[in-house]
Amino acid sequence: MTDDLDTRDKLTFDRSHCPIACALDNLGDKWTLLIIRDLLLGKKRYQAFLLSPEKIATNILADRLKKLKTAGIITQQAYQQNPTRYEYFLTQKGEDLRPVIEALLVWGKAHHPGTKTFQPINHQ
Amino acid sequence: MTDDLDTRDKLTFDRSHCPIACALDNLGDKWTLLIIRDLLLGKKRYQAFLLSPEKIATNILADRLKKLKTAGIITQQAYQQNPTRYEYFLTQKGEDLRPVIEALLVWGKAHHPGTKTFQPINHQ
Repeated sequence: MTDDLDTRDKLTFDRSHCPIACALDNLGDKWTLLIIRDLLLGKKRYQAFLLSPEKIATNILADRLKKLKTAGIITQQAYQQNPTRYEYFLTQKGEDLRPVIEALLVWGKAHHPGTKTFQPINHQ
Repeated sequence: MTDDLDTRDKLTFDRSHCPIACALDNLGDKWTLLIIRDLLLGKKRYQAFLLSPEKIATNILADRLKKLKTAGIITQQAYQQNPTRYEYFLTQKGEDLRPVIEALLVWGKAHHPGTKTFQPINHQ
C-alpha cells in the first residue's frame, strides 16, 4: 500500500476525502433529507412518512430508512408485535443534520416564493 | 381551479410547497452541490470541475451545469471563441447556497473521520 492520496481515498472514502462529498454519499438524493425533515418535525412511523405531501414511494422509503440505519443516522425500535412495526429515531449523528435542514429551509424560502415552513407535530 | 392546497401544489411546485423539498428539487443528488463547492472554491471552467477528485463524468457535469443555469443558480460567460468555451459563475441565488455547503462541511467533518476541507484556489 502506498501513501498516495488517491489510493488512500479509494480505500477509505467512496469518492474523495472531502467532507462535503462524504456527506452527500449519505444524503445526496431527493428523498433522504425529507425523511430527516419529517423526523425533526416529530414523525416516527412508516405510515406517517408516507403521508407527507411529497408522496414518497414505499420502496424508496424502505430503501432510505435502511441506508440511514446502516449509516448510523437513525435507529429503530419496535412499538408493536405480530406484525412487528417500528418507530424511527434520529441518533446524535442524525440530530446533527438540523443545521443542514435549516440552511436548506432558509435558501428554499428565499428563492422559491410561496413555500411555507412545515410545523412540528405533537402526535401522529 | 379550486383553492385546495394539493391542487395548488401541483400547479406551482414539483412535489410540495415545503421549501426544503423545493431546494432538493434543484440540489438533491450526489453531484450538484459538489459543483457549487467547486465554484465557491474558485473554479470556473469545465476542465477544472472534471479535475476534482470525485471524477465527475462529462455527461453528468454537462447535465448539472445546464440544470443549474435553468434554475438561475449559475451563469456562464464565454472566455474563448472557435470553439466557444465558457466560464461559470454563481449568481446571488447560487452564492446564497454557501450556508448549505458550510453546514454539510461541518457535519461531514464531524462524522467522517479523516476528511479534510478543500482550500480555495487562486487560479485554475
